[in-house]
Amino acid sequence: MGNLRLASLSFMSDEAPSRPLRTIDWTHDHIELIDQTLLPDQLTMVTVSKVDQLVDAISRLAVRGAPALGVAGGFGVALALMTVEPAHLDSAIKTIRHARPTAVNLARGVDRVAAFIPQGFDAVLAEATRLRDEEIVASTNMGERGADLVEELVGDARVRAMTICNTGGLATVERGTALAVVQTLHERSRLAEALPVETRPLLQGARLTTWELQRMGAPYRLLVDSAGPSVLARGLADVVLIGADRIAANGDTANKIGSYSLALGAARAGVPFIVVAPETTMDVDTASGADIEIEDRGPGEIVAFHGQPSAAAGSNALNPAFDVTPADLITAIVTDKRVIRLDKP
Amino acid sequence: MGNLRLASLSFMSDEAPSRPLRTIDWTHDHIELIDQTLLPDQLTMVTVSKVDQLVDAISRLAVRGAPALGVAGGFGVALALMTVEPAHLDSAIKTIRHARPTAVNLARGVDRVAAFIPQGFDAVLAEATRLRDEEIVASTNMGERGADLVEELVGDARVRAMTICNTGGLATVERGTALAVVQTLHERSRLAEALPVETRPLLQGARLTTWELQRMGAPYRLLVDSAGPSVLARGLADVVLIGADRIAANGDTANKIGSYSLALGAARAGVPFIVVAPETTMDVDTASGADIEIEDRGPGEIVAFHGQPSAAAGSNALNPAFDVTPADLITAIVTDKRVIRLDKP
Repeated sequence: MGNLRLASLSFMSDEAPSRPLRTIDWTHDHIELIDQTLLPDQLTMVTVSKVDQLVDAISRLAVRGAPALGVAGGFGVALALMTVEPAHLDSAIKTIRHARPTAVNLARGVDRVAAFIPQGFDAVLAEATRLRDEEIVASTNMGERGADLVEELVGDARVRAMTICNTGGLATVERGTALAVVQTLHERSRLAEALPVETRPLLQGARLTTWELQRMGAPYRLLVDSAGPSVLARGLADVVLIGADRIAANGDTANKIGSYSLALGAARAGVPFIVVAPETTMDVDTASGADIEIEDRGPGEIVAFHGQPSAAAGSNALNPAFDVTPADLITAIVTDKRVIRLDKP
Repeated sequence: MGNLRLASLSFMSDEAPSRPLRTIDWTHDHIELIDQTLLPDQLTMVTVSKVDQLVDAISRLAVRGAPALGVAGGFGVALALMTVEPAHLDSAIKTIRHARPTAVNLARGVDRVAAFIPQGFDAVLAEATRLRDEEIVASTNMGERGADLVEELVGDARVRAMTICNTGGLATVERGTALAVVQTLHERSRLAEALPVETRPLLQGARLTTWELQRMGAPYRLLVDSAGPSVLARGLADVVLIGADRIAANGDTANKIGSYSLALGAARAGVPFIVVAPETTMDVDTASGADIEIEDRGPGEIVAFHGQPSAAAGSNALNPAFDVTPADLITAIVTDKRVIRLDKP
């Protein structure tokens, strides 16, 4: 896979970039995406010109975040149509569709764009591009709508906002979901500080969210995941904002492992717990959280860190990548189109 | 500080050791202790013959665990009496007493043994040795009493026991507190598996508890901390067993950061949540959890791992080492002398 180091490009400088950095995009005849496994040390764009490279990028989390996975799926169909023989096209598209099991957006992006295959490559690429552009608009809308809701719930004080995983521009195309709300609050001068939790095992909060918060100039303090509930109990946060990988018809929400723990802490502390996700994350075909498949990613991510063992040699591990937060612990779901209030009066 | 590598000693072999390895002990004219920062990679005994070496060992967590800190405090008084000029003795003893703020046992061990200073060195060392021996007996009793309670609460099935931090022999002198219960269940052939959480930021669960579970031949799977509550919600654990650094008069319990999160998860899942700690951890002078000082250990432990940065450069962090679990989330407290049932009928 060809890696193009972009360290010399203008968006790496201290000056504001002319347009926001896009996490994933289509360029000429291939996909370009930020290899998020290399952040925060290196900002590296990866050129993806084959289906197996895309599947690899998805499965090793070089590209991640439910909305970004939807766009990856859409552009993936274009890539497959361009590079795979017709006899193997269906199988290639299925491989992309199943590269990760939990996020509904990946399968949705694939299906939506694949429907245009009978109309040819140009129509497929146009639809994938439309999906990308819709995600950009959706992020802006979620940020505004979420910030409005947080201001309403928290009142006049500046906001201390706890969040998990990475739900910023890196998880979408630009700006993000839950972190778009943090960014919008910051742009409105309403953010006291962000409180990202580091998000073991892959540390997306530590590696990616701190990097994005620095880029937007927002104040923050990093926490270990397990500190979240007690920091809430001590009255040090005003709201918890999370993204979602899949929202069931009853409001149960699958998201990064640790979200449920923060929801329990927020409920006990009486702090609003808000899910921010595009409408496409709502899955009416899934009745409740009990029907959501939870990916187990094996022991490797837990027993070592940066290649150094962090547990006794030969340790086995249970490594669920997601958990399900029951709807009764969720104050509201903010999408790009609406606010759904779930809290009991 | 002189490090004596013990890799060639018999307790490193696969054979059962003739007597259990002691985490901390007095030998001739100095303290010997396992440097727990080097586990699981290396089992290294450290010779501590000066007060400042002991304070350093305590503050960098080479010796840790509330009961072991009590013994360290006791032997520390003997060391101070032997090596410090009378004019500086009070100040040296105070420095040991305050080397870490949260665990009541450290100050208790110091105070108990310091009371013998007027009777001379032999009386001081005898009292410190008595404290060590009492801790060994206490661990055995906690293991038996706790295992009895778990068998009563869980019933006939073999037990899947979740636990946090390290509460094994490494946290005491031998066997431990919460992990002594796991060990006793295992010796009774009643343990299905242990589910240690890794315990960020210092990974005592990953580094130390897996090492102890391997030594005792017990089956286990390691979890990231934030997976605990959802693993409980999925019905994959039968009991949560934790140690304690300080138990207030009302039962509120300060323990390693993340304990509160597991308590919230256990309460929601209807799983017993049991605190296992020696009677000396009970602090009747502290009315409730609100009166317990929570040590913040600064950002260094969170923003890097094994010396490698894990967050964007310059990240600040909030790093509470402990949290407080309110008594209403605790099913029972098991001490070396009694079982205190806190759950409402």
